[in-house]
Amino acid sequence: MEIQLWREILLPYEQAVQELKIKFESIINEHRMLGNYSPIEFVDCRVKKISSILEKAQKKNIAINKIEEEIEDIAGIRIICQFVEDIDRVVEIIKSRKDMEVKYEKDYIANTKESGYRSYHIIIYYHVYTAQGDKRIQAEIQIRTLAMNFWATIEHSLQYKYERNMPKEIQERLLSAADAVLHLDKEMSVIRNEIITAQDKFNFKSNI
Amino acid sequence: MEIQLWREILLPYEQAVQELKIKFESIINEHRMLGNYSPIEFVDCRVKKISSILEKAQKKNIAINKIEEEIEDIAGIRIICQFVEDIDRVVEIIKSRKDMEVKYEKDYIANTKESGYRSYHIIIYYHVYTAQGDKRIQAEIQIRTLAMNFWATIEHSLQYKYERNMPKEIQERLLSAADAVLHLDKEMSVIRNEIITAQDKFNFKSNI
Amino acid sequence: MEIQLWREILLPYEQAVQELKIKFESIINEHRMLGNYSPIEFVDCRVKKISSILEKAQKKNIAINKIEEEIEDIAGIRIICQFVEDIDRVVEIIKSRKDMEVKYEKDYIANTKESGYRSYHIIIYYHVYTAQGDKRIQAEIQIRTLAMNFWATIEHSLQYKYERNMPKEIQERLLSAADAVLHLDKEMSVIRNEIITAQDKFNFKSNI
Amino acid sequence: MEIQLWREILLPYEQAVQELKIKFESIINEHRMLGNYSPIEFVDCRVKKISSILEKAQKKNIAINKIEEEIEDIAGIRIICQFVEDIDRVVEIIKSRKDMEVKYEKDYIANTKESGYRSYHIIIYYHVYTAQGDKRIQAEIQIRTLAMNFWATIEHSLQYKYERNMPKEIQERLLSAADAVLHLDKEMSVIRNEIITAQDKFNFKSNI
Repeated sequence: MEIQLWREILLPYEQAVQELKIKFESIINEHRMLGNYSPIEFVDCRVKKISSILEKAQKKNIAINKIEEEIEDIAGIRIICQFVEDIDRVVEIIKSRKDMEVKYEKDYIANTKESGYRSYHIIIYYHVYTAQGDKRIQAEIQIRTLAMNFWATIEHSLQYKYERNMPKEIQERLLSAADAVLHLDKEMSVIRNEIITAQDKFNFKSNI
Repeated sequence: MEIQLWREILLPYEQAVQELKIKFESIINEHRMLGNYSPIEFVDCRVKKISSILEKAQKKNIAINKIEEEIEDIAGIRIICQFVEDIDRVVEIIKSRKDMEVKYEKDYIANTKESGYRSYHIIIYYHVYTAQGDKRIQAEIQIRTLAMNFWATIEHSLQYKYERNMPKEIQERLLSAADAVLHLDKEMSVIRNEIITAQDKFNFKSNI
Repeated sequence: MEIQLWREILLPYEQAVQELKIKFESIINEHRMLGNYSPIEFVDCRVKKISSILEKAQKKNIAINKIEEEIEDIAGIRIICQFVEDIDRVVEIIKSRKDMEVKYEKDYIANTKESGYRSYHIIIYYHVYTAQGDKRIQAEIQIRTLAMNFWATIEHSLQYKYERNMPKEIQERLLSAADAVLHLDKEMSVIRNEIITAQDKFNFKSNI
Repeated sequence: MEIQLWREILLPYEQAVQELKIKFESIINEHRMLGNYSPIEFVDCRVKKISSILEKAQKKNIAINKIEEEIEDIAGIRIICQFVEDIDRVVEIIKSRKDMEVKYEKDYIANTKESGYRSYHIIIYYHVYTAQGDKRIQAEIQIRTLAMNFWATIEHSLQYKYERNMPKEIQERLLSAADAVLHLDKEMSVIRNEIITAQDKFNFKSNI
């Protein structure tokens, strides 16, 4: 397929991630403006690169005309939280909204991946309106703590470097770093309530 | 009412204008990325200031609990076009979308206001999702050319200065400037087709 | 030359236009925050595309190693004003700053181009600091009114379309539009003082 | 002093933090565009709130007319790195630039504060150009890892909550979290070279 055709296909996804980013950032604003602790720290988004889409399609044996249906993370949203406990609140918020529909969830926090990867994934359906009319697309929302995100960024780079042939030694180092991350998240949870009360007061005072 | 309560009331409007801005800017991107002329040049938005809301409520004798219903421009979107002809295309696009519902339209281009003001206004209903759940709000969309926008900005400042007691002389100057604007828009329309074909080619080449 | 090498060459220009944009936007903020009328309405910037640089070099017979010296508009800043009178104030501001040095000026307002083009151009030297250390680059600043900018955008598209072979008829239409623009700018100048006083009051009140 | 006067005083600081943010973000772009690992992950900035300035002045017994000289962090820049090793590279970059001058440095990484706080601080002099002419202001640059930043954010909220009377128990929890952060940073350093090589390749491939 030609670049220009790909651009046309990816346009609604581009639009979707921008709309979704604004919507999740509104949740941050809403909490902060009312002087409350926000369960979301920040939001990132991206549309998968054409080269990555083709690579995934080839690896998973997906026909060209099935790509939009079977590759669920063409539109990707990443929601970063301070604490593990915030993740559940974000999941609830997503489920309660009527402008997006949950297709299914994968809880890689309760079920840590073998690699050490932890995150909560939700696949949603979302409607965008383009010159071609109304279109329902899919998007993947990844919800994680700052610490999980730190680890995942590094693991992604290394996966990419070794193209799935990561040396045992590096794998073990990563697992050890994943432990340090888990430990940090736990330490943080212990003082979480203290922190939340502190931040509520902090933001409120800041507004004045 | 207290400032903090007002902030709470205005939050969904803040969110709405941001979502709507992204949505209309997507129309620009969609056209440019496909190498087409965009009927929209740029998009502006604002939420009405608390002081202006109260002023309008007082002037129009609107009860506090009717403000959200009767003041239709708390959320304001301004869509700027290059040519008068583009305005119709934008109106059609808005009417065809399912994520916003037209309440009514006012065509101040066919029916220029006495002051010289020209613009196309659409009042829409729009749904936002907040911590309090789904909320339907109203928004005013003003669609104008660059030249009309230039005039309107200046007229607004002068209206504001004279607080509705504008001297005759200034009123006449403004009407004369409105004529110059109308003339410019007409000159532009004549060479519009030339320009549109030119810009299509321009943007397309730029993408490569 | 390879794309990657070009990217390396253009990096300091990218950095320069961003810094200059921030600096000129600060002038807007400074005026508005103090409740004064800003001589600058908005600021745009761009780095010339590689293809346009090569085209210009070829057309003007510039050797590859002379490009950075002889093509003065690789970094381009556009400053848009409401009124013709504001342009002089902006020129003075630029000349008084010590963080940019004026190489020379071209006044296409006093000396309108044959095509009808009107704008004030200043070529400056500006220092950027990169991994390679301190580098002095050139940048072109174009200063124009909103109305001049409108005309120039359209003329540029048409120039591009006809690749310097614009039909006489279209040339005449453009000249006629340039007249309408000039007339509009003059109408505006007449009521300028009224407007400036009005906007000063307007911005001041808005700040409260 | 009146709000309006304070605004006037703070304007050059506002301008400075925006210029400095752009400059440090250019370092990120420069590395990534050339396919190299960037020692800077992201950059944040803020101007101290008027209330915080007055509070600090009172606490430290600073006369009103000495505030700009003696409060060195009115303009604040925060540079976040992935790894402890990156901090030294950023410090070197800052020292080598001619558009900012180092007043002095404080290394709270080699000399961790009693509270557990770790960061590298640099006070710089920086010139801004305003309507009043050239002005030399001071700015504080804080350089830290993602993990240090996470800890510092939380510590700041708690400090604020207890207004310098933090319970022993909370202090100990924070120290324990600081240990977890230090451990995580060390784990990360061990695999740093692996990661850097991986990210270089990653970014380079992404550019294509």
